[in-house]
Amino acid sequence: MIYLDNAATTPHKPECVIAAVTAALSSMGNASRGAHEGSLAASRVVFEAREKVARLLGCGRADHVVFTCNATEALNIAIAGTVNAGDHVITTDLEHNSVLRPLYRLEAERGVSLGFVRADECGRPVYDDFERLLRPNTRTVVCTHASNVTGDVVDLRRVSAFAHEHGLLLIVDASQSVGCVPLDMTALGIDVLCFTGHKGLYGPQGTGGICVREGVDVRPWKVGGTGVSSFSHEQPTAYPTRLEAGTLNGHGIAGLSAALDFVAETGIETIAAHEAALASRFVEQVAAVDGVTVYGDALVPDHGCRTATVSINVRDYDSSAVSDALSQTYDIATRPGAHCAPRMHESMGTTDRGTVRFSFGWFNTAGDADEAAVAVREIAS
Amino acid sequence: MIYLDNAATTPHKPECVIAAVTAALSSMGNASRGAHEGSLAASRVVFEAREKVARLLGCGRADHVVFTCNATEALNIAIAGTVNAGDHVITTDLEHNSVLRPLYRLEAERGVSLGFVRADECGRPVYDDFERLLRPNTRTVVCTHASNVTGDVVDLRRVSAFAHEHGLLLIVDASQSVGCVPLDMTALGIDVLCFTGHKGLYGPQGTGGICVREGVDVRPWKVGGTGVSSFSHEQPTAYPTRLEAGTLNGHGIAGLSAALDFVAETGIETIAAHEAALASRFVEQVAAVDGVTVYGDALVPDHGCRTATVSINVRDYDSSAVSDALSQTYDIATRPGAHCAPRMHESMGTTDRGTVRFSFGWFNTAGDADEAAVAVREIAS
Repeated sequence: MIYLDNAATTPHKPECVIAAVTAALSSMGNASRGAHEGSLAASRVVFEAREKVARLLGCGRADHVVFTCNATEALNIAIAGTVNAGDHVITTDLEHNSVLRPLYRLEAERGVSLGFVRADECGRPVYDDFERLLRPNTRTVVCTHASNVTGDVVDLRRVSAFAHEHGLLLIVDASQSVGCVPLDMTALGIDVLCFTGHKGLYGPQGTGGICVREGVDVRPWKVGGTGVSSFSHEQPTAYPTRLEAGTLNGHGIAGLSAALDFVAETGIETIAAHEAALASRFVEQVAAVDGVTVYGDALVPDHGCRTATVSINVRDYDSSAVSDALSQTYDIATRPGAHCAPRMHESMGTTDRGTVRFSFGWFNTAGDADEAAVAVREIAS
Repeated sequence: MIYLDNAATTPHKPECVIAAVTAALSSMGNASRGAHEGSLAASRVVFEAREKVARLLGCGRADHVVFTCNATEALNIAIAGTVNAGDHVITTDLEHNSVLRPLYRLEAERGVSLGFVRADECGRPVYDDFERLLRPNTRTVVCTHASNVTGDVVDLRRVSAFAHEHGLLLIVDASQSVGCVPLDMTALGIDVLCFTGHKGLYGPQGTGGICVREGVDVRPWKVGGTGVSSFSHEQPTAYPTRLEAGTLNGHGIAGLSAALDFVAETGIETIAAHEAALASRFVEQVAAVDGVTVYGDALVPDHGCRTATVSINVRDYDSSAVSDALSQTYDIATRPGAHCAPRMHESMGTTDRGTVRFSFGWFNTAGDADEAAVAVREIAS
């Protein structure tokens, strides 16, 4: 199989990740539960992973790196834990349902109002909308770093400048960019950064987290046992325990820690350059094919930073039909449909048929991109 | 190390679990995301795991088995998703903070009132309290299946009869019993069963779940992408998607699935008998030691079903001092302190020093129990 669905998950984890998880499954205790060597060793693994995440993403404090089971949980915590009843929140049409549904819920249940920065017909954000949407009760901006549909990277410097000019909290969804695009939350002025472990970081599923800038209060989400302050009725207030209840995914975090080493040693710039070259190689070939539409800024000259995700359509075919043909005839794995980003399809006019998404990863080759392009050409003819 | 902290986590996973996780880390796609073989294979792994959980725990429908990252998340979902503002809830002094803190939060924020079935000075539930606590607005009983402090198993048949006589919803925390004690939620009339994967089931950390009886509505907890119904503002209403948002811990669930095979093939009765024999062997030896207090019903003749968890204290020593001595002098891993079950210690008069908990697992031997007993005797003298 030629696997081009790395934006959903990266299926081949590096050997060091498998080795770390295997070792953990053979010996790991429960982190922060007790003081015997099994528990202490687990605690060290978890804390080292926090330090590596903090280093990779520019989080000022390792103890403000909180682990969650996925980016969706991270975004639920970040949004429900900072937005208050009556607030106005600015977000964008590029967002995934992991941002939209927590916001829609606050809109329905807590009197929160929402403003959406539009995406244009190619799925690119209309940046002037940020100022246009501002209201006296605007408190928060929630914004993706990169579209999971088009691979377009949002200019976070611009979004951050807007947020800070108006004293707004900036929450960023880095699910699609972490490990794929250099990202420093302190340099970019991000207050809360949500990430996943199993995509661009090449870690296990069941990992992800939140990096919180020092001084930002995120209310507890799930509450329960923490191994400390057992007699208090409330969750402890200090990070990371504040946002972590119950046994952590120690085995997954051990793998994530090894994956962070893999990414750091390989170098994000190296990974990004490899993936970008594959995506460009694919785009150049399919853009020349009659009947193929490419979305986003991939065809814009000097488009700057992008992830290696490319959405296309072929003639007026349903994206599922194209993706099925790619899978069944060519053994090429892509993803059709809406990609859980409904507003993007409303902007791009693809609500009825979605798009076919090709997303490249570190383990793909130029040959994979070429074979995919040949397959698209054959389907289009 | 002699590891006697299996109630916190079982550190040695069976070979089949390691093999399953390793295989998943080498090839697994994202379950329920797309229709290529990588995703479909992941979906099959996840669904088979649901079927195995349903079979093991007597859940009527495999699609009503919901996966969570731990039992704490499961309990947060079960409690926040069923209890309504103004309800009265009956629970017990045996509960872990994963039950207590979600309930205390509802008490503080939603006008929910709580009644606690007392534990006696040995930590055993005072069953008559259930009737005594009943009020017109009582709607729910939340009850552990087994104390994580004493290993006492609650008579769920009695609790269930009470709940059903009064039309109350019964939520059970099976964190300490699943895999260790036979448990059939349908036969016992349990409405919502919360479990963990990394203790008695010998699966990976980062796994756990909720089994919901058909017809019981649990409101969504985290919301977000599900791979289906992308254009709806709300989480889909059908189980299991209703309670699962974002990428599942597919790697962990693959391991849990193998672990469920291990438990089924070994036989819960066989596991329970082995563990009970070790716990009894240990209790018999330490109970005879001058200055040792054993909590719970371990010394009660014909005590019936118990988990292999034993809490003791030695003279007036702090439990941490004893546990540290066991770790440092004897290389025996136990857990001291409150075990996140504060009300138990208030009942047992051990608030100031906690208890030393010894919890045996399938991979322990009679020699482990004997060495632990010798160490306790030496510390006591």
